[in-house]
Amino acid sequence: MPIRLADRARNAYAYPLLIRQLLHTPLATAPQQEIVYKDRSRYTYVTLNARIAKLACALAGQGVEAGQTVAVMDWDSHRYLECFFAIPMMGAVLQTVNIRLSPAQIAYTLKHAKAEVVLVHRDFVPVLDSIRAELPALRSVILIDDGVGGESPAWVVDEYERLVESSSDRFEFQDFDENALASTFYTTGTTGDPKGVCFSHRQLVLHTLAVAAGAGGARYGQSIRQGDVYMPMTPMFHVHAWGNPFVATLLGLKQVYPGRYVPLDMLALRTREGVTFSHCVPTILQMLLSADANADMSGWKIIIGGSALPAGLAREARRRGIDVYAGYGMSETGPALTISRLNQAFPQHVTDEEIDLRSRAGIPLPLVDLRVVDASGADVPRDGVSVGEVVARTPWATQCYVGNPEASEELWRGGYLHTQDVGRIDSDGNLRIIDRMKDVIKTGGEWVSSLELENLISKHPGVADVAVVGIADAKWGERPLVLAVLRPDFRGRVSAPDITSLVAAAASDGVVPVYAVPERVEFVEALERTSVGKINKRLLRERYS
Amino acid sequence: MPIRLADRARNAYAYPLLIRQLLHTPLATAPQQEIVYKDRSRYTYVTLNARIAKLACALAGQGVEAGQTVAVMDWDSHRYLECFFAIPMMGAVLQTVNIRLSPAQIAYTLKHAKAEVVLVHRDFVPVLDSIRAELPALRSVILIDDGVGGESPAWVVDEYERLVESSSDRFEFQDFDENALASTFYTTGTTGDPKGVCFSHRQLVLHTLAVAAGAGGARYGQSIRQGDVYMPMTPMFHVHAWGNPFVATLLGLKQVYPGRYVPLDMLALRTREGVTFSHCVPTILQMLLSADANADMSGWKIIIGGSALPAGLAREARRRGIDVYAGYGMSETGPALTISRLNQAFPQHVTDEEIDLRSRAGIPLPLVDLRVVDASGADVPRDGVSVGEVVARTPWATQCYVGNPEASEELWRGGYLHTQDVGRIDSDGNLRIIDRMKDVIKTGGEWVSSLELENLISKHPGVADVAVVGIADAKWGERPLVLAVLRPDFRGRVSAPDITSLVAAAASDGVVPVYAVPERVEFVEALERTSVGKINKRLLRERYS
Repeated sequence: MPIRLADRARNAYAYPLLIRQLLHTPLATAPQQEIVYKDRSRYTYVTLNARIAKLACALAGQGVEAGQTVAVMDWDSHRYLECFFAIPMMGAVLQTVNIRLSPAQIAYTLKHAKAEVVLVHRDFVPVLDSIRAELPALRSVILIDDGVGGESPAWVVDEYERLVESSSDRFEFQDFDENALASTFYTTGTTGDPKGVCFSHRQLVLHTLAVAAGAGGARYGQSIRQGDVYMPMTPMFHVHAWGNPFVATLLGLKQVYPGRYVPLDMLALRTREGVTFSHCVPTILQMLLSADANADMSGWKIIIGGSALPAGLAREARRRGIDVYAGYGMSETGPALTISRLNQAFPQHVTDEEIDLRSRAGIPLPLVDLRVVDASGADVPRDGVSVGEVVARTPWATQCYVGNPEASEELWRGGYLHTQDVGRIDSDGNLRIIDRMKDVIKTGGEWVSSLELENLISKHPGVADVAVVGIADAKWGERPLVLAVLRPDFRGRVSAPDITSLVAAAASDGVVPVYAVPERVEFVEALERTSVGKINKRLLRERYS
Repeated sequence: MPIRLADRARNAYAYPLLIRQLLHTPLATAPQQEIVYKDRSRYTYVTLNARIAKLACALAGQGVEAGQTVAVMDWDSHRYLECFFAIPMMGAVLQTVNIRLSPAQIAYTLKHAKAEVVLVHRDFVPVLDSIRAELPALRSVILIDDGVGGESPAWVVDEYERLVESSSDRFEFQDFDENALASTFYTTGTTGDPKGVCFSHRQLVLHTLAVAAGAGGARYGQSIRQGDVYMPMTPMFHVHAWGNPFVATLLGLKQVYPGRYVPLDMLALRTREGVTFSHCVPTILQMLLSADANADMSGWKIIIGGSALPAGLAREARRRGIDVYAGYGMSETGPALTISRLNQAFPQHVTDEEIDLRSRAGIPLPLVDLRVVDASGADVPRDGVSVGEVVARTPWATQCYVGNPEASEELWRGGYLHTQDVGRIDSDGNLRIIDRMKDVIKTGGEWVSSLELENLISKHPGVADVAVVGIADAKWGERPLVLAVLRPDFRGRVSAPDITSLVAAAASDGVVPVYAVPERVEFVEALERTSVGKINKRLLRERYS
């Protein structure tokens, strides 16, 4: 006997999960709440709503229809937030362009996504000009002047603010299939072309609800709640600033957009607007802490993602008053999978245990089916020790890489999304990521986490930056190679044995296995990073093997 | 051009929103958390999960298949929680039977729902015995002995605990359409047959997420969060105890089930198990406060729904330390629509303003599209003054009354669910319910809220209970009639003019309109209530008109 369905009334509203539905509660409960862009703009949710309709009218005037792709190249702004809503709400697909990519890569992603309209900030006009001849689908470019003024290229059709201001605030947004694509953007690995991930309306709505439920329900700190003031510090082109602008909007929070990331400006803006909730990669946190050694940062909750939160950085952030904690996810997972949680109130004195708890990837968000599996796909024990690949199912994970069926099937091998991260999970569901599958060092049949070694070595006061990569070894398969950047005042004063003995000491304390102690340490001037700020280990492996 | 869909990978998991998916996070993050039933049973989420599978195996052994209806007649218990999951997870439909209805009404609902299997607590065996001949679809009755022991009727096939214990804990729950019906139950008005509402898996999952997001994100108190200990005080047969067992499970909270509602037992259980979060109708709160005048109830958050939270009751609850606040919804809406929110920290001294804020229906939950409309369906101004009918769209509202297309279309007239409640809404989205459409007193072309008059009159120290109903009047259409029950020590000492002058004073203060001052007051012994504890105003109107 099959399942039964409701005998739905003809009049009944079936309620598709569409991005426009996220606006009901904030417009009802926080109509006068503010959305701030640097010192340039400040308006209410009522105005946001009106400007979303105006932008839709403006884009419709440019011939934009459901199913088309509209790309955005902008810094973090109220305009980007308007695009997060208006473009998907029209049934069109928002492409958030990673403006840190090379011109050739940007050209590739715009061409691959078949973007027909591009909204481009004046700062990126030269890049777009250099590639627009390679974009046959592109038929309309709208300039974002951002108050700079000056001449506009002949090939832009209009200016964003002028176009929005002069448009009607009445646009009849229609309901449609909640599985309609809402957004797309491209992830870059260290090899191959960028890969496009994509998210439907349903997926973005469910991600928003799950983050609000998971991050709202914390007992101690580490929350996003009513009364918070939100400022992204992960670019809006990167998985919709980790989805938080949607969460902040749903909760009717005050939102602050910092434009281009300039640390001192961000700190001043944070103080001026009373920001309480942000998120960023470790590099940005490091930049903020270094920018002003005296700034009081208390009352600021910051989720760290993108890569592991190093213990030293977490400790420094806590010392400065930041409620810092890790989250975990990736572009393909929309991105949130887990968030770290303290299970006790903050001690006055910051302990190693607390730093350790804050640095974990944490517990899965509601509905996330997270597993750590061995090569056969079987769960490893949840003992906090056994390691394996992290795989997951969530209602918001990308269902494919656009136009790349082979990579798509590989991503979803066996019906679970493969993160290619190596982790372990404890009996309370806390995940720790110990490495990337490709970065973990396979030596003598055992796995050594390059991240754990880096974390350990980074505690040496002379070490400014460090990478550990696996180098082919005839006897052991691979052996760890340490590449360290010394602080200027330590150059010439730290030797390779200083580093290896530090690891050896940790090994004798049982912190790392004995076979993790490296034989080889090289001191280098700097470590190459990818466009998203991660150390380019592929390149380092090639160079040193 | 139509919208675009993702080119989903064959391997990709589409992730239907099924009730079984609510178990992922609690099993990962709170496997050893407890679920307690009175002083009878105490087990972990791991055991809950195993018993859900065992129950499914047991029911499959009784021939239960997807699409069939399995009814439950039990007090609030861990067994009921098991049924909340196991029955829908099999693809079957859980019918939660209102055990307070008359035998004839219970027979009607079981027959209408075509229940094939009934799980019945020993206390309700006599009722079921008296009606089972009228239930042609019924083929299997499972007794819930609840440790009482004694002879079992010949017509029961087995006993719940024996059946669960002896079954395998391996049941292969399948994925299916998220729109599959998960549950049904019957609402009773004051006229006509009970009407069946129904909810799909998708609807229950979305309700759970939205309540967790809406109730987790509060700034001050009034939350359900990690660390809370949950005990329902609204029966589980009534809209799944307002959906909170699903929320508590998703969050991995300790859960405490009180069995039959015996106030002193509930208070003792509450203290023993450290309950911090409950919900109930005003009548139950009144019973708890009266049961033990000395009990310390601080640290207990209680959401009040079902009918308005009277100011006097709210004040008394606050005096006793309860963080009491209102919510609003109805069976048809799954049930949650709104929840009250303080916008400031609790003052030490309880003020009228605070009580007023706590007693509002409150702000809409995430995704709830809530409107107050006039007879033409147009929004009334959001000024906190204009009144109209409350209508709503939510992803979890019943899509029909089962087998009653006429009532279904009327419920969803114009594409919005009509609550038949009269309310007003302010500029911050706060809803106040002032009456039922059928109870509001239409006098001289104006509307007078019977609830507001009752609230006012209930402040008189001599008044134990009060109802105000509209009685036909040749000149004004209707006029208010007050029916008051006096406290024993006030009988003979309070006169009709004492009551009318109290209202007249409020009118001269501008609290109620002048035309609301009643001419007629009757003192009665008691006020008849419906099966769900509401005053039966239809009956009172008939009697006095």
